[in-house]
Order: sequence, then C-alpha cells, then structure tokens
Amino acid sequence: MKLLKIEDIINAGNRIEKLINKTPIYTSALLNKWMGHEIYFKAECMQKVGAFKARGAANSIAFLMENGKKPKHIVANSSGNHAQAVAWAASQFNIPSTIYMPAYSSKIKIQATQSYGAKTVLCNSRVETDDNVKSAASEEGNYWLHPFNSELVIAGQGTAAYEAINELGQVDAIFAPCGGGGLLSGTVIASHGLNPKTRVIGAEPLNANDAARSLRANSILNLDSVPDTLADGAMTMSVGSITFEYLKKLDDMYEIDEQSIVYWTQWLTHLLKISIEPTSAMSMEAARLWLKKQTTPKKILIIISGGNIDQEMQMKIWKENMLEQLPQLIN
Amino acid sequence: MKLLKIEDIINAGNRIEKLINKTPIYTSALLNKWMGHEIYFKAECMQKVGAFKARGAANSIAFLMENGKKPKHIVANSSGNHAQAVAWAASQFNIPSTIYMPAYSSKIKIQATQSYGAKTVLCNSRVETDDNVKSAASEEGNYWLHPFNSELVIAGQGTAAYEAINELGQVDAIFAPCGGGGLLSGTVIASHGLNPKTRVIGAEPLNANDAARSLRANSILNLDSVPDTLADGAMTMSVGSITFEYLKKLDDMYEIDEQSIVYWTQWLTHLLKISIEPTSAMSMEAARLWLKKQTTPKKILIIISGGNIDQEMQMKIWKENMLEQLPQLIN
Repeated sequence: MKLLKIEDIINAGNRIEKLINKTPIYTSALLNKWMGHEIYFKAECMQKVGAFKARGAANSIAFLMENGKKPKHIVANSSGNHAQAVAWAASQFNIPSTIYMPAYSSKIKIQATQSYGAKTVLCNSRVETDDNVKSAASEEGNYWLHPFNSELVIAGQGTAAYEAINELGQVDAIFAPCGGGGLLSGTVIASHGLNPKTRVIGAEPLNANDAARSLRANSILNLDSVPDTLADGAMTMSVGSITFEYLKKLDDMYEIDEQSIVYWTQWLTHLLKISIEPTSAMSMEAARLWLKKQTTPKKILIIISGGNIDQEMQMKIWKENMLEQLPQLIN
Repeated sequence: MKLLKIEDIINAGNRIEKLINKTPIYTSALLNKWMGHEIYFKAECMQKVGAFKARGAANSIAFLMENGKKPKHIVANSSGNHAQAVAWAASQFNIPSTIYMPAYSSKIKIQATQSYGAKTVLCNSRVETDDNVKSAASEEGNYWLHPFNSELVIAGQGTAAYEAINELGQVDAIFAPCGGGGLLSGTVIASHGLNPKTRVIGAEPLNANDAARSLRANSILNLDSVPDTLADGAMTMSVGSITFEYLKKLDDMYEIDEQSIVYWTQWLTHLLKISIEPTSAMSMEAARLWLKKQTTPKKILIIISGGNIDQEMQMKIWKENMLEQLPQLIN
C-alpha cells in the first residue's frame, strides 16, 4: 500500500478551503495553571455540521468533481456525524444523497441529515444499514462515501491538525479520538509530515477498545457486540484496512474509562464554554495520562472532534456533579 | 440626573480593551432560514469569567486607578457572575477583594470566585449578604463595586453592544436580558448613540417581571419574594435608581415564560455549539416575538450575556427534550 503524504493533506486543504470553516483554537488559563502545561483545543464542534467529518466528506466529493467524475448519487451509512457530513457535502455540489441510518439514531440527527437535503432510510439494525449501503453502492451511478476507510476521507480529516499546527506553531504532542481511525490517520500524516518528532496519541473507550487490542495483536480485531460507551463517535465495530496502517504509526493509544469521559465532558464544557461530545473528551484524559509522565512543560494540541449532543446524551452527561472535583495532573 | 453618553462607552472601551476579550459574533444559517431574518449573537459567554460582567467590573476599577483613587480593598455582593467578575477584576490590579455570597450559591461559582483570589464570606440569606456588604462599604478604604446601579458599571457593560455594532455594522434591533438593568442601560446608550433609530428591547422572566411592572407603573417596584425562574441572572429583586432612567428608553420589554427559556437554551446550545445561560436564552424569545410583527427582513443582534451553568442547572435545562420541535417564527 502506498501511504499518503503531507502533500495529500495540503491538496485536500486547498480543495475544501472555501467549503469548510477555519475553526477556532481555544485554551484555558485555569486548566493550564492546574496542569502545568500549555494545552490547546482545535474546536471542530464549530465546523460545518458540528464535527470534523465535514472535512473528509467535502474532500471526497470535491476530488471527484475536480477529476470530472461527478457522481449521480451519493450513498452512506451512519447513525451520527458522518450522516450529516455526507448530506451537507453532497448538497454543496447539488448531488442527491441517500443515507442509511439505524432506526435508533437520535431524531435530531435524522432531522439534521434531512434538513441538509438527503433522503434518509431507517433500518432495523446496524447490520441492515451496512447491508443496504453495500447493495446500493453496487448500483450504477451510486458513489459510496465511506465513513473512514478511504484515502480521500483520511486526507480530508488530516486538514484539521494541519490547520491547527500552522496557526499554533510546533507542538510536542497531538491527541485525537479513535472510532474507525480516519481522524487519527489524517492527523498522523499531517503531524509527522510537518515534524516527525511530534507525538500523535489516540484515545479510545475502554469499553470499545478494538483499536488498542488490534494494535497489540498486530491484526484487525472486531468488537463482539455493540459497545456500552458514552463516546458514541467511537462505537465503530473495527478499524479499516487502510486506517490500520496509519494507526500503527501512533505513539500510543489510551483506553479511557466511562467515568473519565463524563468528567472531562463536564469540565471542558465548563472551562471552554463550547459543546464537547463525550467522544472528544476522551482525548483530554489521554493527554492527562501522557502529561503526567513528562518531566518538562509541554505544549500540546487536542482535537475536539465534534459538538453534536442530543437531549438524552445531555442527561447522561450531567447526571452526577463532577465539577466539584478540580482537575489535576495526578489523581 | 446627567445621563451618560456614547463618549462614556467609548472611554470605557479604551480603558478595558487590554483586560477583556473581544468576544466573537456567531450566526446560524439554519436558524436564519427558519426565521426569515438575519440574527447575530454576541457571545459574552466567551468573555473573561464567562459573562459580560467582567466589562463593568474592569471599567470601575480601571477608572479609579486612572484617577489616582486605587482602593485598598474591594467588596461586592453576588451569588453569580458579578462575584467572579469583581474577584477577577480586582486581581488584575492586585487589589484584595471580599465577596459576600449567599451560602446557597453553587459551589462551582464560590470556587471560581476564590480561584480568582477573592476572599468569600458565605451568608445565610440574600438579605444578610446585602446588609454585610453595606456595612463593609462604610468602612474606611473599602470600595463597594455595585452589580448594576453605577455609572461606571453601566458604561462598561455598554461596550459589548458598541463592540458588536462596530463589527457588524448597523442593526435594526438589539436584545438583552434584564436583571438589575446594567447591561440594558449600557446597551441603550451605545446603540442610540450610534444610531437613534436602532430598537433596543429587553427580556425578563415572566416569573420575575419587576422591571416590566416598574416601567408600566413608572415607578420602581420590588419583587415580593425570591422568584422561581431558571434565568438565575435575572432574579434581582428590583432595578436601580440609575438603571431605571435608561430602561425607560427601551422600545419594549418582553416577559418570557419558563418553557420558552428552556426551549431556546436547548436550541441555541444545539445550533451555536456554545454554552448559553438560561438568562441569555430569554432574549431569543423576545426577538422571535418582535420579529413576527415585522413586515420586512430584519438584521438583529442578541447579546448572549453569559455561559456559566452548574450541573444542577444543566439537569433542569435538559430534563425534557425540546429539540424535536423545530424553531419557527410563528408558533
């Protein structure tokens, strides 16, 4: 397999520049004081559709357009941010789209997907969703925009880290969550392309740790069943054949417990005043675990992957008060 | 009474420029489409201490410094954002401060006030808090930084609207919430100073409608008891003798029911991906009520007063799902 290079990220960035938001970078003086390190947050919750997924979807379609291969129709399968990203990106090029979603997806996400102009097909299970999209993908004129296992998607997702490092200057380490591995793959390519010494570190739910286990086994393993985790953006059953090759280049992959996910979702919301998906909060715990092993002050970047949180999830996040226990590096 | 002028706002702006954040302005394409108007949000949740209150506190102390009247010690009474604002502003000038807070204030706000370096004194009731600060204010060397009934505070709060209009250009109307009336007073001075035709409209909880009733009676009325409202920044028992003179210049004051406060807190959080205090959400319902009477498309500004929300309040906000009912101009 020929690996993607920094040029692929730069090309993707140029391709999608006019479609996406250059998202802000935030920092918290209080958190930096408590941790003793400089921590920056790239706020992809402020991205189109509220998540980094807009980057990969936009890059995929823009690339096809550039090469005279405009699809007649785009299909995708997702219960979450990828559904909205594909619907939005397709609408930017006036291409009709159909998104296969599990019927248990939150109404607000189904609604949002529809409001971007996509047709939604609700399926009885995740398996049915996947079967349907594969069947649709085989039909003439349909383009399947995969949620992560695609070089165009990976290159698009990598533009978030590239944009952030260009603005911030070099950082010692970058942290991002792992679902199917698209964001982390793009982040590895961008970060190492700019500076091979930058550490790139992933965060995955302990309850959905297929990527960490796959890396230990040096072979892609699947989750046995739908995992029980608040990090709904990291429930993917396995990483992809393409993303796995990039995940092998990570410096570490931390497995995060549910309590820490709730803790940092509450605290980052409180400190930064932005919407933080539980999936994004995992990276902060990974950062804490890494930082406490460091002997000199570090400058790090955390990619806040998204901010789409429905009411049911809000109730799960805020059920217990975690804001009385101040963040500290070592607990 | 000699009324403040736009020059007082400009002077305040220059005075506090280096201390405060120039906060971002957000808009939602989806909301604008649904409403049929252009709606901009000045995000004071991204201000120092997470609320516009930092402006008035900073202006008060910076003015004293400028005039060689550095206080030996600053005192204030507040259960919320003003407490943190005074603690923060005093620390900027290395002045010790003591904040009298009701014991029922949320721990996270007491903690934040202390972390800015203030001494906090917890009192058994709001009345005791007020008595204590008045007694402390009479002591030699103590400066009482009032939460709203002060020209320096009003001029400081007015810099939010001034900054926003300078960035956005003229708007047809500006909306802000009413507690003691400091933010609205400053907003009236700034807006009318820049363009006398700009409508300035207040929003107050129906359950704490002392300002609306005072305006109807043309005389300051008090609430009978601590009001039952989610808009915790608008629970002030009465407006001030100074702020009342400016509130008389408002084009309207809408009284907002609790259901609408929850509805817009959920929807603005969802659409803008920022932390929205229930107090701030009131202004959006006032805007909707005003916009539905308009016959041509309008460009309006809503001041998001703050984003400090503790866990107990989050649970009250997200108890019921309001996100399945799409916003519309007329409901």
